[in-house]
Amino acid sequence: MTLRIALFGAGRIGHVHAANIAAHPDLELVVIADPFIDGARTLAEETGAEAVASPDEVFSRDDIDGVVIGSPTPTHVDLITRAVEKGIPALCEKPIDLDIETVRACKEQIGNKANTVMLGFNRRFDPSFAAINQRVATGEIGNLEQLVIISRDPAPAPRGYLEGSGGIFRDMSIHDLDMARYFVPNIVEVTASGSNVFSQDIEDLGDYDSVVITLRGDRGELVNIVNSRHCSYGYDQRLEAFGSEGMLEAANITPTTVRKHSADSTNQANPIMNFFLERYSAAYQAELAAFAEGIRSGAGFSPSFDDGVIALELANACLESAQTGRTISLSTITV
Amino acid sequence: MTLRIALFGAGRIGHVHAANIAAHPDLELVVIADPFIDGARTLAEETGAEAVASPDEVFSRDDIDGVVIGSPTPTHVDLITRAVEKGIPALCEKPIDLDIETVRACKEQIGNKANTVMLGFNRRFDPSFAAINQRVATGEIGNLEQLVIISRDPAPAPRGYLEGSGGIFRDMSIHDLDMARYFVPNIVEVTASGSNVFSQDIEDLGDYDSVVITLRGDRGELVNIVNSRHCSYGYDQRLEAFGSEGMLEAANITPTTVRKHSADSTNQANPIMNFFLERYSAAYQAELAAFAEGIRSGAGFSPSFDDGVIALELANACLESAQTGRTISLSTITV
Amino acid sequence: MTLRIALFGAGRIGHVHAANIAAHPDLELVVIADPFIDGARTLAEETGAEAVASPDEVFSRDDIDGVVIGSPTPTHVDLITRAVEKGIPALCEKPIDLDIETVRACKEQIGNKANTVMLGFNRRFDPSFAAINQRVATGEIGNLEQLVIISRDPAPAPRGYLEGSGGIFRDMSIHDLDMARYFVPNIVEVTASGSNVFSQDIEDLGDYDSVVITLRGDRGELVNIVNSRHCSYGYDQRLEAFGSEGMLEAANITPTTVRKHSADSTNQANPIMNFFLERYSAAYQAELAAFAEGIRSGAGFSPSFDDGVIALELANACLESAQTGRTISLSTITV
Amino acid sequence: MTLRIALFGAGRIGHVHAANIAAHPDLELVVIADPFIDGARTLAEETGAEAVASPDEVFSRDDIDGVVIGSPTPTHVDLITRAVEKGIPALCEKPIDLDIETVRACKEQIGNKANTVMLGFNRRFDPSFAAINQRVATGEIGNLEQLVIISRDPAPAPRGYLEGSGGIFRDMSIHDLDMARYFVPNIVEVTASGSNVFSQDIEDLGDYDSVVITLRGDRGELVNIVNSRHCSYGYDQRLEAFGSEGMLEAANITPTTVRKHSADSTNQANPIMNFFLERYSAAYQAELAAFAEGIRSGAGFSPSFDDGVIALELANACLESAQTGRTISLSTITV
Repeated sequence: MTLRIALFGAGRIGHVHAANIAAHPDLELVVIADPFIDGARTLAEETGAEAVASPDEVFSRDDIDGVVIGSPTPTHVDLITRAVEKGIPALCEKPIDLDIETVRACKEQIGNKANTVMLGFNRRFDPSFAAINQRVATGEIGNLEQLVIISRDPAPAPRGYLEGSGGIFRDMSIHDLDMARYFVPNIVEVTASGSNVFSQDIEDLGDYDSVVITLRGDRGELVNIVNSRHCSYGYDQRLEAFGSEGMLEAANITPTTVRKHSADSTNQANPIMNFFLERYSAAYQAELAAFAEGIRSGAGFSPSFDDGVIALELANACLESAQTGRTISLSTITV
Repeated sequence: MTLRIALFGAGRIGHVHAANIAAHPDLELVVIADPFIDGARTLAEETGAEAVASPDEVFSRDDIDGVVIGSPTPTHVDLITRAVEKGIPALCEKPIDLDIETVRACKEQIGNKANTVMLGFNRRFDPSFAAINQRVATGEIGNLEQLVIISRDPAPAPRGYLEGSGGIFRDMSIHDLDMARYFVPNIVEVTASGSNVFSQDIEDLGDYDSVVITLRGDRGELVNIVNSRHCSYGYDQRLEAFGSEGMLEAANITPTTVRKHSADSTNQANPIMNFFLERYSAAYQAELAAFAEGIRSGAGFSPSFDDGVIALELANACLESAQTGRTISLSTITV
Repeated sequence: MTLRIALFGAGRIGHVHAANIAAHPDLELVVIADPFIDGARTLAEETGAEAVASPDEVFSRDDIDGVVIGSPTPTHVDLITRAVEKGIPALCEKPIDLDIETVRACKEQIGNKANTVMLGFNRRFDPSFAAINQRVATGEIGNLEQLVIISRDPAPAPRGYLEGSGGIFRDMSIHDLDMARYFVPNIVEVTASGSNVFSQDIEDLGDYDSVVITLRGDRGELVNIVNSRHCSYGYDQRLEAFGSEGMLEAANITPTTVRKHSADSTNQANPIMNFFLERYSAAYQAELAAFAEGIRSGAGFSPSFDDGVIALELANACLESAQTGRTISLSTITV
Repeated sequence: MTLRIALFGAGRIGHVHAANIAAHPDLELVVIADPFIDGARTLAEETGAEAVASPDEVFSRDDIDGVVIGSPTPTHVDLITRAVEKGIPALCEKPIDLDIETVRACKEQIGNKANTVMLGFNRRFDPSFAAINQRVATGEIGNLEQLVIISRDPAPAPRGYLEGSGGIFRDMSIHDLDMARYFVPNIVEVTASGSNVFSQDIEDLGDYDSVVITLRGDRGELVNIVNSRHCSYGYDQRLEAFGSEGMLEAANITPTTVRKHSADSTNQANPIMNFFLERYSAAYQAELAAFAEGIRSGAGFSPSFDDGVIALELANACLESAQTGRTISLSTITV
C-alpha cells in the first residue's frame, strides 16, 4: 500500500525530499505547501503533486499518511505540533527550534506523542557512517574509546542566513553533536573552543568561524569534533571510531575513482563532493525509507524528537563552554 | 516531450533497463515483450507498462519512439532489422550476433540505416572510464601510448550459458575490446594467449578460462587486456591510460569508504562491487540517457552498429591468435 | 673535519643514537657513559667507542665536540649544565626535567648559553611532518587555521615506568605539544580533557589513559591533539594541517606497499610501524644530522632549550585544565 | 668474522655497492678495481678501500672472500670465470653477457662451479615484491594464475648507451622476465609485441621504446609485462599476483606519506621515487646481505647463474616473437 506524503517547503531541501518521495516505490507525494506558491507549483509539477500555499490546506485533508517538514526553522514547532495533534507521523528537518525553551514547551505539549516525530539528522543514514555504527555495535572494534569527527563546510552561508542561524554550534555543529550521540548516546560533559580566523562577517555577528568540541560519554569515551565554516577542497566529512581492538574510519567521497599521476604529483583524485546535497544524497534517500518503514511498522522513529532536543542542549552547552572557558557538565539533562 | 519506449526481454538485463526507463524523466516504458509472458507481466506491473509475448505486438504499434533490445543474443539481428525497417531507433545489448557472417548480412540488409542502432557497450558510460576518456581526448596526458585493462568476472556463468556463449573472447573480452576501441579506435594487430587454470568445465568446452590480449593501434599504441572468468574478491574492473605526459587510472569501487585498522592489517576496505549490475548501474543509466538524447537529436548513436561489428571481429581475431600462436593483422577489416 | 661525540646512556634510545652517530660520515662516537657499565661496554664494542661509568670521565676530556644525552630524565639537568659550562654543545632527549621549577632554575643558571643546547623532539625531523611544515611555511595552503594531531602509543609502558613518567601530558602528549608549536609557535590557551577507559593501573596512579587537548594560537589557530596510551593497530602517528587554501596530511607508514584483496576485504595493508624506534628512525638520523650541522655552523639549535621549557609548561597547563575543567590562559608565559 | 670484499667497477652501480658493503657490519670493502683509476680512487677514499686499475691486482691477492662485479657488461664473463677459477664467490650485475653463445660458453667452462655465482637481479630483494613472493609461496592466495608486471623507466638512457644495450628486451625487460621467473620459474611460451611511439633515436637503432610481453608458465600461469622506456611521473614499478583465492599487489613508493587536498584535486601525493638507485636502495642492501649469507653458509646463491642464462634466453625469445609475430615455445630450453 502506498503512503501518501505531504511536504512543507519547496526550497533547496524541499527539492531533495520531493525527488526522493517521488522516486520511492511505496510513497506518493500528494501535496507541497509553501507560502511562496510559485516555488511550490514548479516543484509540484515536476513531481505530479498538488501545490498549496497554506499548511491549513494540508491539515484539512484526511488522506495524508505522513508529513515531511522542510520549511524554515521558525515554522517547525507549529507544524510538528499540528501533525502530532492530527496523528500524522512527521519527519522534520533539524533543528526543532533554535530556542530551547520553545523546544521544551513543544515537547510538553505533544507529550508522549513525540514518538511520532522523526528528526532529520540525515548523516545517521550515510552508508559509511551507518556501516561503522553497526560494526561498532557488534563489538568488532571492542569498546569504543574515542570518536573523531572532522566536519567542514565548503563556504559560509550568506550573512543574511548566518544572522538567523543561531550560531555555528546550533546551526552547523549540531549535526556533529548528533553524530556523536549516534555512537555515544549519553554525553555527560561538553568543552568547546571557538575562534575567528577568516570571516569578518562572522566575527561581527559575535559568532565563531572555527570551533573544536570535546565531549565525554558516560563510559569515559572522548569525542572530538573539528569544525570550520569554510574548506577550500569541498565538503570535508570524515569520522573515525577508535576502539580497544581496532579503528574504523570513513573518508571523503570523490565522484569517480580516477587518479592522475604526473611529473608534479601522483594519486591526484578529483575534488570531493562539494556539499551536502551531493555528499548525502544516499543518506537522504535512506532517511526517507526509514521514515516510511517507521510509519508502516509503528515501531517509532530514530532519530527521535528527543534526539533533536538533546542535540540543541549540547549545542547550547558548547556555546556556554566556549564563552566561559569552562567545561559544562550535563548531568542534569533529562528529556 | 516524453519518448515512448518498448523493451524486449524481461530477464536480468531487462530488469535493469526497465527500472532505468521508468526512472528517466523523459522516457515512458510502454510495453515489455517476452515470450516468457509471466516474467514480462511481473516486470510490467512494477513499471506500469503493458506486457506482450510477441515482438509482433510491439512492431504493430505506431506509438513507439525507441526500442531497447535486452532479449537473448539469437533474437538480436531479427529485432534490430525489424526496428530499422520500421524506422525506430534501437539500443541493442551486445553482441549483435555471435556469427560474424550473420552480423555482416544484417549490416548489408539495413545498410546506412545502421546509424539508427546503438550498441549496448555499457562500460563506455561508466563515470570513471568516461572521465578518463574525455581527459585523454583533451590531451591532458599527452599522446596515449599504452592502455592496460584488467577485467575479471567474479565467477564463471553456468555451463549451460557457457556452451552457447561463443567463448571467452566473444562473450567476455568483447567488452574490453570495445573499451580498447573507445580509446584507440583503429586497431591494426591482435595477439592473444589463452589458458586453462581453474575450470575443468570450461576446458571441456574447448574454451579458455584466462586470457591475455595485446592490441596495436594505428599510431603504435599498445593495449593490454587481462581477463579471468573468476575473481575471488569480486568484479575486478580497472583501467589505466598511460600517456607521454601522465597516467590516468580508474580503480575498483567499494560500497562505502570505510576502512578498518586492526592488529592484523590496516586500510581494510569492504569487498568491491560484486558484478556488473551493481558496478555499472550508473553506466546503464547514462547509456540510456545517451540513447534518449540520440533519439531526440537525430545525430546518431555511439557506440554504433559498426562498433559492434568490429568488436566481434577483434574477438574472432583473438581466438585465431590464441589458437595459432600468431599475431593477426587486421589491415583488411573494412566495415 | 670529524666531530667527536660523547653519548650518555646506553639504553634503548642510547642504542639508536650510538648507531646513528657511528653511521654518520662526519661524526665519531668517542665515548659512551653509563653507570651500568656492562651495557655501556657492549654498545661501545659494537660501535668502536670507549665505555665509561661516570660522566666525570667524559667532562674531564678535552677532545669532545658534542654530547648526546640519552640517559634517564633525572640526569638531564645536571648533564646539560655541565656541558654548557664546559662549552660543549648538547643534544638532550626530552624532557629537560619533569619539574618546571628545576627546569627554570637550570635555565637561570645557564643563561644565554642555553642556545648551545638542542632538545630531542625527534618528530620535527620526521620527513613527512617536516615536509608539511615547510610547505605550510611557504604559504602553499594559505593561512594555517587548524592543526589536528592524532598520536597513540601501541601499549602503555610498564607500571614502574608510568609511576615516574610525570603522567600522560608530561610524558606522552609533550611530543604532540611540541609538534603543535612546530606549526603554531605562540600558544595562548590550553584546554584538556582526560579519561580512563582501559587501564586500571593508570587510573590507580591518578593518571589518564586517554586525553584530548585543544590549543589556541595567537592568530586564532585551533590545534587539536588526540592521545591514547594504547592502540591495537600499532603506533598511530598522523597529522593534518588545514589552511585557508588547502590541507596537507601525513598518514601512518607501513613497511611495504603490499595490499591484499580477498573475498572478505580489499586493500588490506600490513600493520603500521609498531613504535617510535621504527617509525621515527629516519627522524632520529635527521635530528642528529641537524645537531652536527648546528655544531659546525654555530648558528644555534632547533628545537631549543626554550622549546623544551614551553612544552613542559603546556603539559602542566593541560593537567591543570583537565583537573579543573577550565581553559588555562598562557599569556603570562615568558621564557 | 668479517668477509673481505673486492669490487669491480666504480661507476654508478659501483657506488651503490661500495656504500652498502661499507655499511654492512660483517663486510669489509678491501679493494676497488676500475681502469678509470681516478674514479676508483675517489670511491676508495670515501669507503676506506684500496684502489687498483687492473683485475689482476685483485685476483693476485689471497685475502678476498667475495667479489662484486659492477663493471661494464663486456667484462662480466671474464671476471666471473676468473673468480670461479680462483674459488671466490661472485655477485655479478645482470646481464652475464648480451650474447647467449658467450654466456653458454662461460657456463660450459665453469661447469658446476656456476653455483658460486650470484646474479644481481636486485628486484627479487625489494621488500614489497619479496613479501608478495613469500605470501604466494605459502598459498595465501591459492594457486597463482596471473601475474601483471608494469615497469617503466623514467627516461631512456642516452643514445650511446642504448646502442650497446642489446635492445629493450635484453637491457630493460630482462629484469621483469626474471621477476616473472621469481614467481613462475618454468616459462614455456613467450609472446611479445614492440612499438615505437615516442623516440626517433630508438627507432633509428631498430629497437622498440614500448613493449608488451606475455609469458605462459608450465601450469598455465599467464604473465603479463608492460614496459616503456619513458614515464613522465617517475620510475613506475608495480606488480600484481592474482591467485585463485586472492590478489596481492605492490604499489609505487613516494618519499613521504604527505597528501594534499585543494580546490583542484585531492589526495595528491609527491612524485614517486625517480629511478632504481632510490627505488631499490633497500633491495640492493638486502641483495648484498643475501650474498654475504650465501658465502658464509655455502648453501648456494639465488638468483643463480642459470637464472641469468634463462632471463637472457627469454629476452631473446621476446625479440624473436616481436619480430616474427609468432609465439615462441621454450620447451627445448635446458640449462
